[in-house]
Amino acid sequence: MRWAACVEYDGSGYHGWQSQPHASSVQDTLEAALARLANRPVRTICSGRTDTGVHAQGQIVHFDTDAERSERAWLLGTNRYLPDDVALQWVIPVPETFHARFGAIAREYRYWILDRTAPSALWRNRAFHSHNRLDAEAMHAAAQHLVGRHDFSAFRAAACQAKTPWREVSRCDVSRRGDWLRLDVHANAFLHHMVRNIVGTLLPVGRGQNDGNWVAELLAGGDRRRAGMTAPAQGLSLRRVHYGPDFELPPPALDDDGW
Amino acid sequence: MRWAACVEYDGSGYHGWQSQPHASSVQDTLEAALARLANRPVRTICSGRTDTGVHAQGQIVHFDTDAERSERAWLLGTNRYLPDDVALQWVIPVPETFHARFGAIAREYRYWILDRTAPSALWRNRAFHSHNRLDAEAMHAAAQHLVGRHDFSAFRAAACQAKTPWREVSRCDVSRRGDWLRLDVHANAFLHHMVRNIVGTLLPVGRGQNDGNWVAELLAGGDRRRAGMTAPAQGLSLRRVHYGPDFELPPPALDDDGW
Repeated sequence: MRWAACVEYDGSGYHGWQSQPHASSVQDTLEAALARLANRPVRTICSGRTDTGVHAQGQIVHFDTDAERSERAWLLGTNRYLPDDVALQWVIPVPETFHARFGAIAREYRYWILDRTAPSALWRNRAFHSHNRLDAEAMHAAAQHLVGRHDFSAFRAAACQAKTPWREVSRCDVSRRGDWLRLDVHANAFLHHMVRNIVGTLLPVGRGQNDGNWVAELLAGGDRRRAGMTAPAQGLSLRRVHYGPDFELPPPALDDDGW
Repeated sequence: MRWAACVEYDGSGYHGWQSQPHASSVQDTLEAALARLANRPVRTICSGRTDTGVHAQGQIVHFDTDAERSERAWLLGTNRYLPDDVALQWVIPVPETFHARFGAIAREYRYWILDRTAPSALWRNRAFHSHNRLDAEAMHAAAQHLVGRHDFSAFRAAACQAKTPWREVSRCDVSRRGDWLRLDVHANAFLHHMVRNIVGTLLPVGRGQNDGNWVAELLAGGDRRRAGMTAPAQGLSLRRVHYGPDFELPPPALDDDGW
């Protein structure tokens, strides 16, 4: 029997999603809780790994088990065994043809920036604090060069193991409310560090040090060394993963959907 | 020279505002950072103490010192010495007639409740998780009985040291967006645990176990033992403190002001 689950987590306390021998990961934490409820080992496949400190509201996993539990038992039971910085949002049965990673057709990430003099105590693990005031409109305009199907080698981590650097970005929006900027990037898939490298490249645009033409040239040049820094992890969260029309998954419960 | 400052803090890691001999408090943490910048001891007076686990976006303090620093130096320097779960939002010079506690004429608190089956990993320290779905409209209607000048003995902690139980509540609103409820209570001043006891009393109203008449009777009866539980601390934050028209303080920077 195959099950799909939506996982919300605060990545602050974890060395990323992926299971590791000597560090705590979200995957190990979740699998331990599932195994405790199932009374046998459970292995999960996720839609895409997240790095140390990166959050998720809508990470999707699937797992196979012959343990018989109701949807409600999986949800409540697993959450009872999870630490409070990881929480399942729903669990549903899916056909064997569902695959959390290979079936994902689009992913949505959001990156929060706070650009005022004083940092935020309450958002210290959810947003990047920029001491410099940023020009959100210039950043948004520059970000439009990234929309479309491109070779994103310039925004790819050296350690990236993807077979191809081509990705299709359907949306790359920067908007402001008060002292808060959010960057929403939707794509069919992402390279390692791609969103954080996009943010790091848009920051000098926001500071007026570069412009959209520079971003377009970076993208065309394909040289990671010329692009911006990798922005800090804590501003980033995986909000939603989309699957094909054969699978009707509930949407994630988004806390920051208000604007 | 007297200074006023606006303090944001995540109360999760502190045993409340007030200085204590064997536990970490926001006050001790702040005073240590101020003293380091001032090169001499600094004592602060706050608008009102907050309990263990309660947050603030707009706590106001004042302090007297002969250390000469600019507004910007106080702000940036103190924040550099503070841990990242406490952050000054602004520091301004004020006349000797300003007093953070005795000069405060109104306070605004907000309490967050999440009422869905699954808890939120990212908001675990910012909201109370109710497994029961709550009737926000019924809670709002019942809360209106608390608006006005009343003896709030029924909503007062046993340890409360206030001289009088009379307080004037100008606003007590419950509203919903999706799975989130917020309670906004504005009053001239608050008794110990008053907001958390109001929330604890409105919860059975939200569950349909009691109604507005019950709340009105509790208030009139003045018996703490008959009212609801003290709701958990983590949902509560002190958002803003108001002073008289002689003092023009900047507003706090509110992250959850969107709805």
